[in-house]
Amino acid sequence: MSREDTASRPPEAHIRQRIADWATAISAKNIDGVVSLYARDIVSFDLTPPLRYAGAEGKRRAWQAVFAALSGPIAYEVRDLSVTTNEGLAFVYSLNHITITVPTGQVDRWVRWTACFRQIDGDWLVVHDHVSVPADPVLGKALLNLTP
Amino acid sequence: MSREDTASRPPEAHIRQRIADWATAISAKNIDGVVSLYARDIVSFDLTPPLRYAGAEGKRRAWQAVFAALSGPIAYEVRDLSVTTNEGLAFVYSLNHITITVPTGQVDRWVRWTACFRQIDGDWLVVHDHVSVPADPVLGKALLNLTP
Repeated sequence: MSREDTASRPPEAHIRQRIADWATAISAKNIDGVVSLYARDIVSFDLTPPLRYAGAEGKRRAWQAVFAALSGPIAYEVRDLSVTTNEGLAFVYSLNHITITVPTGQVDRWVRWTACFRQIDGDWLVVHDHVSVPADPVLGKALLNLTP
Repeated sequence: MSREDTASRPPEAHIRQRIADWATAISAKNIDGVVSLYARDIVSFDLTPPLRYAGAEGKRRAWQAVFAALSGPIAYEVRDLSVTTNEGLAFVYSLNHITITVPTGQVDRWVRWTACFRQIDGDWLVVHDHVSVPADPVLGKALLNLTP
């Protein structure tokens, strides 16, 4: 669906469609499709370091690194998506399930995803995102195998 | 400052005051003050497991566990707070610095914090929060020593 088609829809439907398209783009390793969700000046708290970075070009590099590291197919699912919106502002959160195929089989991970949107020139774009897994601060471990 | 005093202020000023009061409550180990920021049905993606939990009582238990584990003084600082708001909805994010005193000296940690607010009965409350440190997914490590 083109941006013209979705721009006139109610905000929540528009945002849900944008996110569905984004997940499809991730599974297709379509970097331009993935990056089209992000505002130019997005501030990201991403799964991997650093603590914080800014700019859609930073998101592009992060996703390019993911796609380069994962040579096999990727399946990306947005689960239990909550969307809260009013005029010009929205926030969403979900548990996102990534399944990758490696030579020895399949590996899957659940990450927590929060994204904050602004309506910019009629389109809804992510101005802040936060992606993580829980930590065990005492043992210094990232808990990568938790499931909903 | 009482809720009556702050309720008539512009949303951003009101929210910044609420967050300043919350950080003060954390440093004071004032559990009721800490929990007063959260909506009853908050959905939390917290620093520690599980992936997701719901309800202000869950936040209360999580903070009680933090306070029980840290017998010495706590200093909690909200750094580089960004606040975006319009009528009835807001999102904020910051890097939060916690410094704890242990028998051998001081330990400090930086965490990323995103909080999504709704105005409920005139007050601004957090309906979703997300707290994390970055991970190294290959080594399974939580990266606890990163600094801004």
